[in-house]
Amino acid sequence: MNNRLFSAPLSFADVQITDGFWQRVMELVRTEVIPYQWDALNDRIPDAEPSWCMHNFRAAARLNEKQRTLGDAFVPPTYTNRGFQILPQDPAHPDPDAFYGFLFQDSDFSKWIEAVAYSLANHPDAELEAIADGAIDEVCAAQLDNGYLDTYYIINGMDAALTNLRDNHELYCFGHLTEGAVAYYQATGKDKLLRAACRFADYFAERFGPEEGKCKGYPGHEEAELALVKLYEVTGEERYLRLSRFFIDQRGQEPKYFIEEEHRRPGARATDLAYHQCEAPVRELKEALGHSVRAVYLYSGMADVSRLTGDDSLYEACRRLWNSIADEKLYITGGIGGTHMGEAFSFPYDLPNDSAYSETCAAIGLVFFARRMLQIAPDSRYADVMEQALYNTVIAGMALDGKSFFYVNPLSVVPEACQRDKRLEHVKPVRQKWFGCACCPPNIARMITSLSQYAYTQNQETLFTHLYIGGSASKLFDGKKLTLNVDSRLPWDGHVTVAVRADEPVQAALAFRIPGWAENASFRAEGKQQTVKDGYVYFSGEWHDGDEITLDFPMEVQMWQANEKVRENIGRVAFTRGPITFCAEEVDNGADLHLLRVDGKQISVEESHVFGHETVALKVSGVREKPAGKALYRKAGAAETEPVTITLIPYYAWANRGLNEMSVWLRG
Amino acid sequence: MNNRLFSAPLSFADVQITDGFWQRVMELVRTEVIPYQWDALNDRIPDAEPSWCMHNFRAAARLNEKQRTLGDAFVPPTYTNRGFQILPQDPAHPDPDAFYGFLFQDSDFSKWIEAVAYSLANHPDAELEAIADGAIDEVCAAQLDNGYLDTYYIINGMDAALTNLRDNHELYCFGHLTEGAVAYYQATGKDKLLRAACRFADYFAERFGPEEGKCKGYPGHEEAELALVKLYEVTGEERYLRLSRFFIDQRGQEPKYFIEEEHRRPGARATDLAYHQCEAPVRELKEALGHSVRAVYLYSGMADVSRLTGDDSLYEACRRLWNSIADEKLYITGGIGGTHMGEAFSFPYDLPNDSAYSETCAAIGLVFFARRMLQIAPDSRYADVMEQALYNTVIAGMALDGKSFFYVNPLSVVPEACQRDKRLEHVKPVRQKWFGCACCPPNIARMITSLSQYAYTQNQETLFTHLYIGGSASKLFDGKKLTLNVDSRLPWDGHVTVAVRADEPVQAALAFRIPGWAENASFRAEGKQQTVKDGYVYFSGEWHDGDEITLDFPMEVQMWQANEKVRENIGRVAFTRGPITFCAEEVDNGADLHLLRVDGKQISVEESHVFGHETVALKVSGVREKPAGKALYRKAGAAETEPVTITLIPYYAWANRGLNEMSVWLRG
Repeated sequence: MNNRLFSAPLSFADVQITDGFWQRVMELVRTEVIPYQWDALNDRIPDAEPSWCMHNFRAAARLNEKQRTLGDAFVPPTYTNRGFQILPQDPAHPDPDAFYGFLFQDSDFSKWIEAVAYSLANHPDAELEAIADGAIDEVCAAQLDNGYLDTYYIINGMDAALTNLRDNHELYCFGHLTEGAVAYYQATGKDKLLRAACRFADYFAERFGPEEGKCKGYPGHEEAELALVKLYEVTGEERYLRLSRFFIDQRGQEPKYFIEEEHRRPGARATDLAYHQCEAPVRELKEALGHSVRAVYLYSGMADVSRLTGDDSLYEACRRLWNSIADEKLYITGGIGGTHMGEAFSFPYDLPNDSAYSETCAAIGLVFFARRMLQIAPDSRYADVMEQALYNTVIAGMALDGKSFFYVNPLSVVPEACQRDKRLEHVKPVRQKWFGCACCPPNIARMITSLSQYAYTQNQETLFTHLYIGGSASKLFDGKKLTLNVDSRLPWDGHVTVAVRADEPVQAALAFRIPGWAENASFRAEGKQQTVKDGYVYFSGEWHDGDEITLDFPMEVQMWQANEKVRENIGRVAFTRGPITFCAEEVDNGADLHLLRVDGKQISVEESHVFGHETVALKVSGVREKPAGKALYRKAGAAETEPVTITLIPYYAWANRGLNEMSVWLRG
Repeated sequence: MNNRLFSAPLSFADVQITDGFWQRVMELVRTEVIPYQWDALNDRIPDAEPSWCMHNFRAAARLNEKQRTLGDAFVPPTYTNRGFQILPQDPAHPDPDAFYGFLFQDSDFSKWIEAVAYSLANHPDAELEAIADGAIDEVCAAQLDNGYLDTYYIINGMDAALTNLRDNHELYCFGHLTEGAVAYYQATGKDKLLRAACRFADYFAERFGPEEGKCKGYPGHEEAELALVKLYEVTGEERYLRLSRFFIDQRGQEPKYFIEEEHRRPGARATDLAYHQCEAPVRELKEALGHSVRAVYLYSGMADVSRLTGDDSLYEACRRLWNSIADEKLYITGGIGGTHMGEAFSFPYDLPNDSAYSETCAAIGLVFFARRMLQIAPDSRYADVMEQALYNTVIAGMALDGKSFFYVNPLSVVPEACQRDKRLEHVKPVRQKWFGCACCPPNIARMITSLSQYAYTQNQETLFTHLYIGGSASKLFDGKKLTLNVDSRLPWDGHVTVAVRADEPVQAALAFRIPGWAENASFRAEGKQQTVKDGYVYFSGEWHDGDEITLDFPMEVQMWQANEKVRENIGRVAFTRGPITFCAEEVDNGADLHLLRVDGKQISVEESHVFGHETVALKVSGVREKPAGKALYRKAGAAETEPVTITLIPYYAWANRGLNEMSVWLRG
């Protein structure tokens, strides 16, 4: 690896987003999601399961001197399919000193504060900042003198802390707290939460590591790995990078820590090593396996550590795991996680549509992983997947009005099946207001508000544009500022104009991704040297104010079929245009979408509206099979059909017009 | 209903089966399955999970005077996906006084003794009868003075008996004991077990019923209903019919017994009413729902009681439930139960192939139900389904060598998916030697050995032939004996000749089913009056020795498609010939069966061998799509194909040639 070429995101202050498509989503997050989530964290949403998040911090703050022990009075948590959850025996009168909710509930605050930080960076808001400062005060009040800050154990007894790394999410909560703290410090310059995160990190650094006598465990739900890298990058403290590297190096080593830990906990269920990505040391992993969010969070941390330590074998593992996902386990919506059993990757090419898991958080984690791979070696195949995940599954996770959310993102839905088939219990045919286990909505919020961190990266010589998002981006080259003013109408139109602004001539390389979906792409920057490499066009030379780069990415409708190994999609086709994946909904096409057959002879693109939202629809010619009687089985014969025009809308916009069928893949 | 027309099976003594196809299966059961199962009941099968069945009877016999109570020493049973199971803490040293295995393990003996009885009726065997008598002695030794005979409670404490009717299978075990006892009495004339069953029945009759003070519960797993009818029919004791009727009438009434019972058991999980067919009183049931074995056992009991009591509303419910199955929930293999969640019926037209449950026992239960519907009103649609279930799913449940068994009968198998996809954990791609929860193997044994009870029924005027099985059947008409000698080569050839034997002229009606699969069927009996009604041809008149009936059922290969509401099978076809449903296996067609497409232009029938077993194969023309590169997604276009001849073998014979892919439905 050549360290000199590694790139890093631009700072928030150096990017402005004015993009028509994304501005709307970011404004929804700012005006709807962030305030709604603050109410949710404080259990003020009628009809929604309480979060108990801020309650727990306040309870911990009241109790953190008492250092209770887990005694007989403790009610063991209830295991649900989302993890352990503790509910008050009398919901009307919760104990102010008790911990409630999921064991990882602290992280809801952390993701929220991270989203708040990015939002403040994009859009200063004194009132929101005051609320955030107040919340940080409550959170920090719960921290123990030794730096520990996980309310479940502070409230229930520190004697059990660190005894169940596999299931109980302490290091996951620490990781999110740290990400939030770093973001808030970067956005506001305020370091109270950052100092708390450092003290919490120091608590772990003192207890975990290769040194004799230190714990050889690692996170059950990965997240601390990438967070410690962020903490290292903002503080420069090597010990945080070392701890991240320790967690990564240690993972999957013999003896397996989680099995040893399990044996110390009577009645513990058996460890599924692959679920936790510890079936082998991480450098030996070849196939993306297990819980898909955990997996991509780990891979993101691995990519970070390989970049910062120049670790080739770790980077090679990242490349293998990336390929395992992109070549064999990626939905055409940019989603990952074929099975709800363990919210996990299924086996290669097993990409069921109706029972897909494709968790919103996993698509977000895939964006994390992709950006980190881009930082090491810019290659459009990472950015293509990043864009595919963002424009499809990530934003499908949120309703067009920002008020409800998908956790699971199926590629085919039949409401009756979701309601009557217990095998599809995890699939919701309409978005939900809020979940008790609310990992996805705040994850969407922090993703959307930090979009600038994914659109651009830079190294000494080059400013990379990975995503075409209207707005501006600035970078100093040898102390001289160069600004790109990007005019883009993506995802609806592939013509992009970039105007250069510079007070004085700047020697620089500007690299622009050539999207994989653009056939016969053309690009031009007068008088500059032009090179194409790994899906990026590099324009180098001396830039002057007013220079212009034009990029034309033809945005044809593309009809796809899956590799024949994807049994689920044999004989089926799906449509994309630019970065957008399309789907058919019942509201446009009638019920029984499986009776439609695409012939693809006529395909047109139309401006359209979904739930008042301007979008583009595809009109595709095909036929609909007519019902042929009541018999359960009948002699095979050509079905009677009628010609139809099938309407397809962007996948992200589905389920905004009531309960109905949806399908991405149609019979071809 | 017109009672006079109700028909009943012939006695065992009046039917001989010499049929080439079935003789082989019956001999396997007699020579392989029954001895193997006796070893299994006695835990003498190496490498197989112990049954503990006879151990429990012996333990109960030792302890049945002690009347233990469930004390602190009792280890609570472990809940598995097959129910509660108790395992010894040290498998090498089981406690001779302890109950082990599934709570319903007693029923393994009962199904075995039932199969033994039928086998003895077909094929006397003094050695086997001696073993059976010895087993009956052990079982009867466990019976309490009050008649109670369920080893789980005898061993663990009678204070808890009848406290968990919903889950703990006492009435189920009673039902199977009774069926075994009736069969053994009918086969051998020995009534020791029958008397035990009567005493056990009396125990329940004293405790359950509409009278004040009696328990208003009913079986959690239905079975006692139809068994009590058998006990009534063999003893003539009205109280057994009354108890069966009570269980049926009471089921689903408000207040729901299982919910009341659940509230009396702290920590009991919530009752799924539909799982237990008690979402409504049975006369109001409209859709076949819940655990499919329980459902068809109940419906069989309902049909019996409606016949014996002339209860029209109950019969109407049976007809509705039959239609719900036959019109919306029946696999083309005669299997039922679309989902493993609750081993249950799924919603209408939800008939997944790979994740099918289609339990062998459920197909057997469907045969029970069909025969009982035929007894009320002969209609070939019942017999067609009975035949479809028997020739396909029921015998698919057993390997061609009789040594291994399927519990679940999928219509499509990809071994990698079964091994790597936890959603398919219930699907085994090869048959298993024995199951700890071994309901299916002994159920197959008792079904096959009692085939004569399904081939014929009779009433005063008419002898009905429902299944064409080579052999003979005799009946007295007005005291004069008439024998049919049936020459049939089904399922391979549809030409059937029936020779009449009679010492003196006999006035009689002989009815023969016209199979639904036979187009342009022809039939003839010289000089007899011929009527066709509800799929049966009736020949009436005076019969003389040497009279002959010829029936020609053309056995064309038929290519089927499913109703378009069956999403799983859209665009797919399946093949049958006569009663046999066919499937493609990897061993004949290569891997990736989903790449095959049938064109159906050429279809031929060939004699074939599978695992040394003579059978018929179909050769169907089609194409195989060629792999088109590594990309996960590629531009849609016509697939390159090569012409192939697809080989199909009977479904019942699949998985006898090693681990491989299988599919009933192929792309059309």
